[in-house]
Amino acid sequence: MNDAFMEDTTAIEAAAVSYLTAFNRGDAAAVVSTYADDGVLMSPGRPATVGKSSLAETYPGIFENVGFDMKYEIKEVVQTSADWGFVRSATEGTQTIKATGEAHSASYQELFLLRKSADGVWQIARYCTVNVTS
Amino acid sequence: MNDAFMEDTTAIEAAAVSYLTAFNRGDAAAVVSTYADDGVLMSPGRPATVGKSSLAETYPGIFENVGFDMKYEIKEVVQTSADWGFVRSATEGTQTIKATGEAHSASYQELFLLRKSADGVWQIARYCTVNVTS
Repeated sequence: MNDAFMEDTTAIEAAAVSYLTAFNRGDAAAVVSTYADDGVLMSPGRPATVGKSSLAETYPGIFENVGFDMKYEIKEVVQTSADWGFVRSATEGTQTIKATGEAHSASYQELFLLRKSADGVWQIARYCTVNVTS
Repeated sequence: MNDAFMEDTTAIEAAAVSYLTAFNRGDAAAVVSTYADDGVLMSPGRPATVGKSSLAETYPGIFENVGFDMKYEIKEVVQTSADWGFVRSATEGTQTIKATGEAHSASYQELFLLRKSADGVWQIARYCTVNVTS
């Protein structure tokens, strides 16, 4: 840890956990609020979603179609500078296609790249999630 | 850009390009050499591969099974501190199953998190790749 900056790993982890828990309950507004204005989502099956207004269009569509019942495990939390850090996690659980009620097990891994805003809030700058099983 | 550190985006981008070009030619040793010792791969269909010795076991298996003919596009290169930065890219092209010769189009997006080593070499610390189409 570099002595030149305050360690902020608790707040960094909390920002990622806010995302994961909001995602799991299908709360699109709460999910989007965890991103920075220039935040980017990289997830299976779609090109990168760049910027908060695009994110606000993407997430409701996900939650309309699929319900999630996932448990997360934080694998590591690293602060790399005064205002940047990352979190790696894994999630595992059940996805349900809402139109059919069809449920299947699913597991993912996640990489969150987070940045501290000017007013001291850790926000998701870049986020990549990839399916372990599909 | 923070005045407190030298801008090193050219070297950061070059490290990601080294990975992408080595991957495309199926050169496992060159791919693994672009990682830091504690490097982590997050890619579709497998749990995270953690550490250089595990990476050295994973990549040859990928290249034995699949040939890649992909073009990359660097979407952004950001240096976040003296010794950390990230690169976001997209790749598109053709994958060939070597056992059958079956070829299909494929596209991915990539997020590289890079760290400068003690001897000044930019290395992949964490890497997440996700399929746009599969």
